[in-house]
Amino acid sequence: MKTLTVHDPEKKPIYDILFSKDYSALPDALQSKSLVYAGRRICIVSETNVAPLYADEVVALFRQCGAEVTVFIFPAGEASKNLDVVRQLYEHLILQHFDRKDMLVALGGGVVGDLTGFCAATYLRGIDFIQLPTSLLSQVDSSIGGKTGVDFDAYKNMVGAFYQPKLVYINLSVLKTLGEKEYLSGMGEIIKHGLIKDKNYYQEIKDSVSGILARDTDVLENIVYQSCNIKRHVVENDPKEKGERALLNFGHTIGHAIEKLANFRLLHGDCVSIGACAAAFLSMKRGMISPEEYDSIVHTFESYHLPVSLSETDSHINSRQVVSATKLDKKMESGHIKFILLQEIGSAVIDKTVSDDELLCAVSSVLK
Amino acid sequence: MKTLTVHDPEKKPIYDILFSKDYSALPDALQSKSLVYAGRRICIVSETNVAPLYADEVVALFRQCGAEVTVFIFPAGEASKNLDVVRQLYEHLILQHFDRKDMLVALGGGVVGDLTGFCAATYLRGIDFIQLPTSLLSQVDSSIGGKTGVDFDAYKNMVGAFYQPKLVYINLSVLKTLGEKEYLSGMGEIIKHGLIKDKNYYQEIKDSVSGILARDTDVLENIVYQSCNIKRHVVENDPKEKGERALLNFGHTIGHAIEKLANFRLLHGDCVSIGACAAAFLSMKRGMISPEEYDSIVHTFESYHLPVSLSETDSHINSRQVVSATKLDKKMESGHIKFILLQEIGSAVIDKTVSDDELLCAVSSVLK
Repeated sequence: MKTLTVHDPEKKPIYDILFSKDYSALPDALQSKSLVYAGRRICIVSETNVAPLYADEVVALFRQCGAEVTVFIFPAGEASKNLDVVRQLYEHLILQHFDRKDMLVALGGGVVGDLTGFCAATYLRGIDFIQLPTSLLSQVDSSIGGKTGVDFDAYKNMVGAFYQPKLVYINLSVLKTLGEKEYLSGMGEIIKHGLIKDKNYYQEIKDSVSGILARDTDVLENIVYQSCNIKRHVVENDPKEKGERALLNFGHTIGHAIEKLANFRLLHGDCVSIGACAAAFLSMKRGMISPEEYDSIVHTFESYHLPVSLSETDSHINSRQVVSATKLDKKMESGHIKFILLQEIGSAVIDKTVSDDELLCAVSSVLK
Repeated sequence: MKTLTVHDPEKKPIYDILFSKDYSALPDALQSKSLVYAGRRICIVSETNVAPLYADEVVALFRQCGAEVTVFIFPAGEASKNLDVVRQLYEHLILQHFDRKDMLVALGGGVVGDLTGFCAATYLRGIDFIQLPTSLLSQVDSSIGGKTGVDFDAYKNMVGAFYQPKLVYINLSVLKTLGEKEYLSGMGEIIKHGLIKDKNYYQEIKDSVSGILARDTDVLENIVYQSCNIKRHVVENDPKEKGERALLNFGHTIGHAIEKLANFRLLHGDCVSIGACAAAFLSMKRGMISPEEYDSIVHTFESYHLPVSLSETDSHINSRQVVSATKLDKKMESGHIKFILLQEIGSAVIDKTVSDDELLCAVSSVLK
């Protein structure tokens, strides 16, 4: 089975990422790492779309290892990623007498992973948790690197903690049950990984359109593995986002602003796609990439049916609003926006000199 | 100025504890550690008893260093230590545009320190904070060691994080403005430090009754310093309470249960005093300490006017209730209570074999 190991800054291994085509290897993985044993209480946290598909199978596998399993399910969607649902989960854990030795399991996409991780980080000042990511986005991005958290009012991930899982187990077959739009929205982060870190990988992504659109498990295993490896490498070098990790925010500064202004009606990956095109536009305007490269980037997002500009539905959003929202983003640092630009395809840089006019111009390029 | 440095498990210094008789050395301490500089946003978090006495002075000192200072004040008392107040503080920080480079300052006792630390740990996944503890209890105990958190319903410290401050600045003179009962309640933890770790220090505490009761600043400086040094030593060895740190829970297992059953009408230090007497009784019953030593322990708590048994007011609480509440405590581990007993005066041990009958007997010893 393909495996990656994530290390801490002292090069000590913290957790493994396992890549599989089903859940059959889960009991062995859990037992070999002493993550499940007789009497350990396990709470499987999931949401209303994922639970009906996979919760029974996963619960049975944990019970098979001797665990005492309970399940907590909340309504699917970003709107659930808030402190009220966190409180309900705390309450559930208290009523089930969970103590410091017990464990949470996130079974779902990014919302489930982020919320479960935050509960694990803060219940009794921290208990173990593992990730069973079920969306493409969570498999290549949010399940790795220890960022946990919830939204606060309209502010995304405003409340959270850096807290590492004990295991990430990726079942690639579950991607087949994702809705088309949700599945493709994960491609935004994958293309981003190529753009910011690896020109050859970017080319591979461009060459794999048919295999990826067909959800070929072998093609996906290769792509998901490579994306996880890029993310692993970045977060190992900079676990708490003091430097290099900010590169992963390519496309996110404007993307988050759009996501917020659209009141989270747009998928995160769609907003990242639009934001990445805006950032690529700005990189071109500064002469860092050529107009041909810019066109190729926009085309790559389009080839995965990702939006590269705001649609008619969101025509009420204007560029000044987006710029204002961008400047409220938490990636601000003492008044300066940390903007990620492409030095060339396969290499990104942090830039703190982007002016309001440049921002306006970049945002205008993705508005209809 | 007397100083202690707290280190991480790799022996790297994390933060200093400074002991002073006023706030005059605060600006130098802040600037020498680059904790305050022009434009850094600072939020002084305090409560309605402490703020009128010290907030203006502290705000002025931070402004003198060039910081942009805002103040957040909540109603004094344990009842405020909850997620609703945490949410109000998040909101305040968002409205004031606090970003990852900004800082919180806890000006108050344990409630302020725990709540502020938890906000700092979770706002934007963690921002800096410093502690200016104003109660005796927070100076010798809660401000050191990185335990942060809030209560959840009737469950104390159910939600929290391990998160270290950047500085602890102890002004011993502020102890003079504490109410008598609140001041003395801090002595419970101080006597505990001697009992579990240092026989000579315990003797010194017994010999210092008049100086401590008179709040002599020199006597207090010596006592607070020694208690902080014991706590520092324990938390350095075991920052996340996997082992030795549990010794600090001497008196807390039964103490917390009583605190909860009395609906937090009793001061924490009073409950610890009662709990410590129960734990000493159990240690005597097991033949670990002599009846004379047990009597001396009870007498020491009494000499500081601390309660050694539940009063008439709480006569509705019976020993079976206390035992049940004890077993719901988070210090449970897979069904076993981690009870702290005295091997001898100055040395405590973790014991997981305490039976229900022994617990009942110990609890009965502190009920009228």
